[in-house]
Amino acid sequence: MGRGYVHGYDPRENERLQDQAGTLVELLHWDTSYPGGSSVLEAGCGVGAQTLTLARNSPEARFTCVDLSEVSLAQARRRVAAAGLTNVQFQNADILALPYEAGSFDHVFVCFVLEHLRRPVEALRALGTALRPGGTITVIEGDHGSAYFHPDSEAAREAIRCLVELQRAAGGNAMIGRELHPLLTTAGLSEVHVSPRMVYVDSSKPDLVDGFTKKTFTAMIEGVRESALEAGIVGPEVFDRGVRDLYATAGSNGVFCYTFFKAVANRGWA
Amino acid sequence: MGRGYVHGYDPRENERLQDQAGTLVELLHWDTSYPGGSSVLEAGCGVGAQTLTLARNSPEARFTCVDLSEVSLAQARRRVAAAGLTNVQFQNADILALPYEAGSFDHVFVCFVLEHLRRPVEALRALGTALRPGGTITVIEGDHGSAYFHPDSEAAREAIRCLVELQRAAGGNAMIGRELHPLLTTAGLSEVHVSPRMVYVDSSKPDLVDGFTKKTFTAMIEGVRESALEAGIVGPEVFDRGVRDLYATAGSNGVFCYTFFKAVANRGWA
Repeated sequence: MGRGYVHGYDPRENERLQDQAGTLVELLHWDTSYPGGSSVLEAGCGVGAQTLTLARNSPEARFTCVDLSEVSLAQARRRVAAAGLTNVQFQNADILALPYEAGSFDHVFVCFVLEHLRRPVEALRALGTALRPGGTITVIEGDHGSAYFHPDSEAAREAIRCLVELQRAAGGNAMIGRELHPLLTTAGLSEVHVSPRMVYVDSSKPDLVDGFTKKTFTAMIEGVRESALEAGIVGPEVFDRGVRDLYATAGSNGVFCYTFFKAVANRGWA
Repeated sequence: MGRGYVHGYDPRENERLQDQAGTLVELLHWDTSYPGGSSVLEAGCGVGAQTLTLARNSPEARFTCVDLSEVSLAQARRRVAAAGLTNVQFQNADILALPYEAGSFDHVFVCFVLEHLRRPVEALRALGTALRPGGTITVIEGDHGSAYFHPDSEAAREAIRCLVELQRAAGGNAMIGRELHPLLTTAGLSEVHVSPRMVYVDSSKPDLVDGFTKKTFTAMIEGVRESALEAGIVGPEVFDRGVRDLYATAGSNGVFCYTFFKAVANRGWA
């Protein structure tokens, strides 16, 4: 599952994930909070980019955060400790082989994880089983096919396609956001409600120009340059032009659009 | 300007425009209303699809609605009369040669019009001139490059590309929505604020599945079949498969996404 993780585990990547959470935290998380005393499973917490927000927004809830990577978990532990948060515990675990009894959690939260999984429906079924009857699951995913911009650029679209292809080759799906409704429904979850969270960036929003267009999205595309060239799916000229054109959408006449999808569903009472 | 209007003027097309306004009226118009006594210019009113909503939402404002086509204006007049609305007058006029003194209007409204114009910035300048100092302009446009869906389909994307190309050949721009901020800024308008209005449709929203995915978007693509085949930009197999695939996004596992852009700006006080 984790071996094909396309974004890698290096420090700059972690910084990008952190930038991302910092810039998008309002958009994605304003409506995520859990009642005092409730137990929440965060599946695939990685380096804890979302964990800090979750634990801060719901200080009286108890979070169990699992990930496949011990390296990531060590970082997540350090950050949670540095933030003085005491309502989080971490565990090394695989979503498809969770070390918890069925019905152990009141809520499940999973963010930017399904996109990397070969069998997302199976993962959702496993997470559903971890929920008590009536418990909720919240899923957040991006969709790289939702990116469009001005000035439009074929090279930029090619560079984005590289990330989509690399992620597909690694068993994932970089355009999974749009599929959340059918995926959760197929996994047997009930009352699936999907809410798209569109990031619209023009020059009147300098914080998003810098924090999203440049440092989140374009930096992410730039980050797969070596892998894309090694895989032979693009030439260096086209890729580099694509990245330059993406940066150009952060110019004074530029516009950048991207949509995240947030789904909430529940296990049902049956 | 109007000669290349890609959607044509036939009755079924009018019905589609009406369906569209009926389904999207909340999304696009909930925040459009004008104070009593104010004078509003609707530029390019067509058959009055938006006019009814405007005039109903602001019963004490006075609307002057202009269009190039006498045939469309006649229909718009009939519909406004049938609806019992008395705060609307119509005039045959060209946006680029408006028969009004500069500064004649408190507000300007223009919806699904710029996409068909060869020189949208020039049109916006002309509309800005029609505004009194401090008057506002509201612009709504779609963006066919914002359409994505599940199941994804190359043929469906090809069919959409046909409409984009035909509209470009006619001098228009079917992906103009994303450009509203730079266009209005370039036209010298002030305090440009763009608000994207995303239509997200999954099977939990049967009214939108029917009213938007099928009867608005897919019907619009289907409507250019003959023109696309005549223009030789697609073969009938690919186009027909594309349309079938678009209808498939209205199925129980389907999802359809599209974004309209609404911009509000003002003339400034200089």
